[in-house]
Amino acid sequence: MKPIALDAMGGDHAPRVTVEGALLAKSQGIPVVLVGPTDTLKEELRRQGGDLPIVEAPEYITMQDHATDVRKKRRASINVCMEMVKQKEASAVVAMGHTGATLASALFNLGRIKGVDRPTLLIELPSERGRTYLTDGGANVDCRPEWLVQFAVMATAYAQAQGVENPSVGLLSIGEEEEKGNELTLKTFPLLKATPGIRFYGNVEGRDIFKGTTDIVVTDGYTGNVVLKLSEGEARTLFKWVREALSGGSLFTKLGALLVRGALQGLRARMDPAEYGAMPLLGVEGPVFIGHGSADGRAVQSAVRKARAVVEAGLVERVRAGIAQLAV
Amino acid sequence: MKPIALDAMGGDHAPRVTVEGALLAKSQGIPVVLVGPTDTLKEELRRQGGDLPIVEAPEYITMQDHATDVRKKRRASINVCMEMVKQKEASAVVAMGHTGATLASALFNLGRIKGVDRPTLLIELPSERGRTYLTDGGANVDCRPEWLVQFAVMATAYAQAQGVENPSVGLLSIGEEEEKGNELTLKTFPLLKATPGIRFYGNVEGRDIFKGTTDIVVTDGYTGNVVLKLSEGEARTLFKWVREALSGGSLFTKLGALLVRGALQGLRARMDPAEYGAMPLLGVEGPVFIGHGSADGRAVQSAVRKARAVVEAGLVERVRAGIAQLAV
Repeated sequence: MKPIALDAMGGDHAPRVTVEGALLAKSQGIPVVLVGPTDTLKEELRRQGGDLPIVEAPEYITMQDHATDVRKKRRASINVCMEMVKQKEASAVVAMGHTGATLASALFNLGRIKGVDRPTLLIELPSERGRTYLTDGGANVDCRPEWLVQFAVMATAYAQAQGVENPSVGLLSIGEEEEKGNELTLKTFPLLKATPGIRFYGNVEGRDIFKGTTDIVVTDGYTGNVVLKLSEGEARTLFKWVREALSGGSLFTKLGALLVRGALQGLRARMDPAEYGAMPLLGVEGPVFIGHGSADGRAVQSAVRKARAVVEAGLVERVRAGIAQLAV
Repeated sequence: MKPIALDAMGGDHAPRVTVEGALLAKSQGIPVVLVGPTDTLKEELRRQGGDLPIVEAPEYITMQDHATDVRKKRRASINVCMEMVKQKEASAVVAMGHTGATLASALFNLGRIKGVDRPTLLIELPSERGRTYLTDGGANVDCRPEWLVQFAVMATAYAQAQGVENPSVGLLSIGEEEEKGNELTLKTFPLLKATPGIRFYGNVEGRDIFKGTTDIVVTDGYTGNVVLKLSEGEARTLFKWVREALSGGSLFTKLGALLVRGALQGLRARMDPAEYGAMPLLGVEGPVFIGHGSADGRAVQSAVRKARAVVEAGLVERVRAGIAQLAV
């Protein structure tokens, strides 16, 4: 397998954490190429005492740049990563941070899979049944019903590439009944019902996301982005309150808090975005993964590992086949 | 002050929990009238060994009824409650459950405040700074920008009636910058900026809801309902996982779990919907509160207590004054 092209200059703490993550991935036997300014990356590798192949990219996109700047900075690291996938020199792109620029660069360099109107960002959230795949995570704020159908098909392909046999699809709404919802979901429901190759469950509600009622939850990118950020924010607040409740009580409570610390840390790890690593961008002609801009080395490693696994499972071929079925 | 009219037949466990809640409220010196079939209510009062005034309503709306059934069942308890407020025989209506029917009955019997296009359901969520008022909670799934402006004005009036001096208003979006958002929020942003009598903060994101960045968060009823149900569901799942983590570990963990049990129960109470009791329906000509259909007696009591407090603080007059300012 060709190596993963890692945009070594993406995210808030690049290139320190990207190099860290790439070295961790290498130690697990996953081949990674760092893409960015050679001098900067050599210096960082020397500092960390590791060695990795580098592909030169003289420019890069910062968090302050606009998504459209990928057209101006043609030799930006993210563009070079995409070009490598296009030329089959790399098997996937992993970039931490700047979602808009990565999306723009993927569209510009790789293009869409035939039949896909809009690529979608897929999010993974922890659930009582394992995890919930949520689409769209914010790439498409205002959506048409047919786009949601395509999201459902692409998310199904992704879940299958991750080993979910026959993933169920729920449409995020405000009631279980078919006639409950907003204009978009009311139009989308009958389309999903008639879509081949997916297992449509019907409407689901906000409470079903963590319950894990369905494997996949489909919604527009505005709502999906609100869901993602709310669920992260709520988890952070609740853990903070648990910590406060345990540290602020009586001596007995404090003693108890010491004894349960390990168990609670295990639980926090389960909620940790680092565990999920990166979100796939589905619907472009190549495997592209976007991680948290605030990622640490371990999150970068997870992202690379995840990219490798789904590429091996034939992600893009699966998405192509699913979308092709829609045209029949 | 006139008594609170309680729809004694509303909710999943009526009339048991409604009578329980009303008796608890009475013991705190809050006058409540039970509205429903006299015989049934007398029997329930006898069973619980209490005494309360009853106003006869021969019919009632069940959870299986449609919202529009309030027009067919003219003598349904929810309609009688509204009529009592209209005739100034009661100071507020409290109903557990059937949101759609209560909304329909309020519109039918009380009507809208002049200048209000759509009444809104306001939700309260716990936050790191106390609580976040979210509007709309699901009464209006597809919204126009001007409606969101009215929601912001009405929520400001409600927060002030609850003692928040100069509440800040955030528009729920997918980025802080003015140019981030969907079609609805992009159109609403400049309108909120120009609205008199509110303190507009700008865009907020999903993570700001539990952080408490603003006192009020404005969104459409589809998104608001997803937020409400997601946040309840996530809290339930996280507490379940905390419980499992503490009970499934080593002997030390189990001992620790015993010692911290009290502290965690206190925290759960903070997240308990019963603490919040009921959501106000803002924009109709009278104070109307809708509680969880699954409410217990304590939640009914909270709902009645909250209704009493905001009525005393001049809720409806404040909403009227805020909306009147928009017309200037």
